Amino acid sequence: MYHIEKEIAEQPEVIARLLLEERDNVATIARAIRDFNPAFVLIAARGTSDNAARYAQYLLGIKAKLPVALAAPSIHTLYEAQPHMGKALVIGISQSGRSADVNQVVIDARAQGALTLTITNNPDSPMAQSAAYHICLRAGEEISVAATKTYTAQLTAIAMLGAALVDDSKLRDEIGELPGYAAATINLAEDAGDRVERYRYMERIALIGRGYNYCTAFEIALKIKELCYLVGEEYSEADFRHGPIAMIAPGFPVMVVAPSGATLPLLVDLLENLQERRAECLVISDVAEVRQHGQYAMSLPTGIPEWLSPICAVIPGQHFAMRLALAKGHSVDKPQGLSKVTITR
Amino acid sequence: MYHIEKEIAEQPEVIARLLLEERDNVATIARAIRDFNPAFVLIAARGTSDNAARYAQYLLGIKAKLPVALAAPSIHTLYEAQPHMGKALVIGISQSGRSADVNQVVIDARAQGALTLTITNNPDSPMAQSAAYHICLRAGEEISVAATKTYTAQLTAIAMLGAALVDDSKLRDEIGELPGYAAATINLAEDAGDRVERYRYMERIALIGRGYNYCTAFEIALKIKELCYLVGEEYSEADFRHGPIAMIAPGFPVMVVAPSGATLPLLVDLLENLQERRAECLVISDVAEVRQHGQYAMSLPTGIPEWLSPICAVIPGQHFAMRLALAKGHSVDKPQGLSKVTITR
Repeated sequence: MYHIEKEIAEQPEVIARLLLEERDNVATIARAIRDFNPAFVLIAARGTSDNAARYAQYLLGIKAKLPVALAAPSIHTLYEAQPHMGKALVIGISQSGRSADVNQVVIDARAQGALTLTITNNPDSPMAQSAAYHICLRAGEEISVAATKTYTAQLTAIAMLGAALVDDSKLRDEIGELPGYAAATINLAEDAGDRVERYRYMERIALIGRGYNYCTAFEIALKIKELCYLVGEEYSEADFRHGPIAMIAPGFPVMVVAPSGATLPLLVDLLENLQERRAECLVISDVAEVRQHGQYAMSLPTGIPEWLSPICAVIPGQHFAMRLALAKGHSVDKPQGLSKVTITR
Repeated sequence: MYHIEKEIAEQPEVIARLLLEERDNVATIARAIRDFNPAFVLIAARGTSDNAARYAQYLLGIKAKLPVALAAPSIHTLYEAQPHMGKALVIGISQSGRSADVNQVVIDARAQGALTLTITNNPDSPMAQSAAYHICLRAGEEISVAATKTYTAQLTAIAMLGAALVDDSKLRDEIGELPGYAAATINLAEDAGDRVERYRYMERIALIGRGYNYCTAFEIALKIKELCYLVGEEYSEADFRHGPIAMIAPGFPVMVVAPSGATLPLLVDLLENLQERRAECLVISDVAEVRQHGQYAMSLPTGIPEWLSPICAVIPGQHFAMRLALAKGHSVDKPQGLSKVTITR
């Protein structure tokens, strides 16, 4: 069994542990945030963690009414400038806790008087110490270079924070169901079999999400790039119609992340447009009729609330990327030319 | 002569007119912003205008110390939620001024008490009326579906705003030189001849920028998608090293935007890494030795200050995309499957 396969399968257990063991810490952090009353949230992250930040932009914007900015760390490192962050909640997200440029944003923000929080999987890392608050993902060691369980753990931590900020018992009840939803999603993904071989010679793919699942399109694209060495282009459904749709010729593969919710009618409309262009559609959805728009369908369990759907909807994409990499004969745990911790300035 | 060719060539004249005719208006807006003293800036935009917003994130962050968030319009339209924007400067950018979702963010923000500004090329459009302040790009009608002169005009308007906010005579003097820099860049691009035919059968390309020119990588990628129907993947140099670099096999084309400035050493290091991987490098730079890292070199005039370089560095990319589309026999003024105004929700 490959490490990545094991780490994908561990996700329900990781989520359950995080929900249990960080609940009190998250409640404390949520109180501190309410007391601080930030004008906005600034999140610093890179790579997979940046996709978790994209989820936070929607979740905190919609549920907690907090506007979220994604930091540009090079403003701090290369240009040695510091935007005014004193009225902000500044969150640094890094699996390893060793992203020097992301940490620099947190350090600068804390010195300015911002409320600071880091989310990492390593309580002994520099980033676990640099902020006033820290959420530990408790995901266990992630050996595969391509992040899977730490990504869904990051999303879960953000969902916990959003639910605690809003202090809504409905949200808290819903989040408690997450380990079950994740387990059901993994069962469906494992049942999918080997049809992925259809894409053995695919050379590129576009990934589309919208709203809460904008991050899912980015994260699946990143997994496909890392594991399969393919160009995976991610778009919001809206941005896609602003230009990139021009490149869709017959047979062009497009994966559409289309779970139930506010974005679904627009995504169904896009799928119909793509079918008219005779694109090859790959569909991730909990709705059987929506999946029928795809030559390749990936099922989600029904009943997942939209705000939690990104934590499950990425899983069939993780599976797809892993299986396609195996079909191509690639090393899935240690892709060529990548290392687990990337140090950038 | 194609419309797009004419519109690319008009850019120095458009920039000069904007600098002259909007100077007083921009000074008034800068005073209003200083009086309002926003906690942060929120910019709503889509497509090409979103790339102008990326420039604003660096320029306003570095020069005016203002943190910049890029809005997620679907929070307002699809989820009917409104993050708290009352302490923000909220800027809507749209060439047509008819982006309904972008305008919704501006309307919501104004109702909340935010300071609002729109930047459009159409003084009669809904967005020209919806904000407290408006900067008109005065670029003249843009007939080609792929935006060129309105993009550099958007960047120029943002640069004018940044210089006025900082109230620094050096920045004001430098911006006055911009029409000359743009004209010199166009002359160099026109002299480049037909070597673009080397890429007639290229199927994909990665575009890399960093810092101020992160936006340039996005915008050139968008032109290549719109005009050439190719997959053009844009990355920051840092994010690229976090995973996507895995997909670089020998011969993979990578265009690197590498003008003089704080990011150049990192980009040269990346070019050396790409050469070791035997990638095909296309380089945009004002430095002859840097251009020598590329199998295909695009020159910029020397002496352009880094903060203004995105307004010129995109021009060789506009030319490249147009010429490659012509080499492929495509209709450059009306690409298949696109319309000038895209209405999204």
